[in-house]
Amino acid sequence: MTADAAPSPVPAAAADRSRATGLFITFEGGDGVGKTTQAALLEEWLTDAGRTVVRTREPGGTEVGVLIRDIVLHHRGEVAARAEALLYAADRAHHVETLVRPALRRGEVVIQDRYLDSSVAYQGAGRVLGRDEVRDLSLWATEGLLPDVTVLLDLDPAAARARLDADDKPFDRLESEKEHFHARVREEFLALAAAEPARFLVLDASLPADELAAAVRERVSAVLA
Amino acid sequence: MTADAAPSPVPAAAADRSRATGLFITFEGGDGVGKTTQAALLEEWLTDAGRTVVRTREPGGTEVGVLIRDIVLHHRGEVAARAEALLYAADRAHHVETLVRPALRRGEVVIQDRYLDSSVAYQGAGRVLGRDEVRDLSLWATEGLLPDVTVLLDLDPAAARARLDADDKPFDRLESEKEHFHARVREEFLALAAAEPARFLVLDASLPADELAAAVRERVSAVLA
Repeated sequence: MTADAAPSPVPAAAADRSRATGLFITFEGGDGVGKTTQAALLEEWLTDAGRTVVRTREPGGTEVGVLIRDIVLHHRGEVAARAEALLYAADRAHHVETLVRPALRRGEVVIQDRYLDSSVAYQGAGRVLGRDEVRDLSLWATEGLLPDVTVLLDLDPAAARARLDADDKPFDRLESEKEHFHARVREEFLALAAAEPARFLVLDASLPADELAAAVRERVSAVLA
Repeated sequence: MTADAAPSPVPAAAADRSRATGLFITFEGGDGVGKTTQAALLEEWLTDAGRTVVRTREPGGTEVGVLIRDIVLHHRGEVAARAEALLYAADRAHHVETLVRPALRRGEVVIQDRYLDSSVAYQGAGRVLGRDEVRDLSLWATEGLLPDVTVLLDLDPAAARARLDADDKPFDRLESEKEHFHARVREEFLALAAAEPARFLVLDASLPADELAAAVRERVSAVLA
């Protein structure tokens, strides 16, 4: 064996900051649309197919992220709009650097509940900040990491609200915002999907869970192939 | 009295996002250079002169800021570099929006321990991020608010360390970084001051406290006049 042909102690992909062979899938949409259910079904299917899957979420996908999530969602006083956007970006920066990118570099599949599209939809459109500013902040935070597939579970806010009311858990600050806010968020999500059709799969979240799961599997299979 | 001449129920300055008649003074420099002492002496002098003074600091100048400061300074694990920069910017955004700008709009003097120059010096130069990126982040967070006067207390890091060692309190994470890191931070502070001589007053922090205080008063008097 010559020196040139010897395997490197550190594979090139591990030193690279890019995604290597992994797959990054995000689920987006308002609260109560069924993201958790669909993420679990996809995880089960991929695991059965022999893939290593990392299930995670934002905000709060890391220990640092849990602390940040507590500030954003549960602080009693008001949090300034720019501070809120920066806190979500901080959570994202830490999460991507310490958890998502390492998993992708190992060739694993990352299935994530909410990512930068949520920030743009909730912060950018729903609040006082511009959507380009919020998106730029996230892209700086993550050094430009975009998902391979983003599943948008689209649902009328009134229907989503009815699902949440059926649960017992108390509403957090975002869930308590007014109905028309959620309508604007929904429009923003749909606009984001329309702008990037190659990345987004938009599904009617009022369909049965197994039909939705089949549609998600079909898209993921195509990307994996 | 005509309608045009009637006083507005909301003064124009209160609706304006600018600083109106207040004065914004920041103290910068490494740990142990005497920022707290000088800020206290300046506060006393201005209060005696009849000014209303707000003493504050970053990180941690607000309730939200204390929570953020805890994450940045006292989290046991590593915090990703971009996340750290975003957390400092979030603290700054909330602090400026809820405390600093309101005080300046009321015409008060804000005396602050550390501001965006600390972020640029510590994060930009000392760590892996570019100083322009860190500065842009702070300017976005604060909608461009710069101090009227920034006092840089310059001291050889070894001398500052000797002062800190004389205290009993335990070192936090930043204070425990290596000596050469503090030397780079000092160089960055001096470079920032050289780039903005109109805003910065650079003082040799090894001088007696009363001499330093006199120099600070002289500069502040000139700006107030």
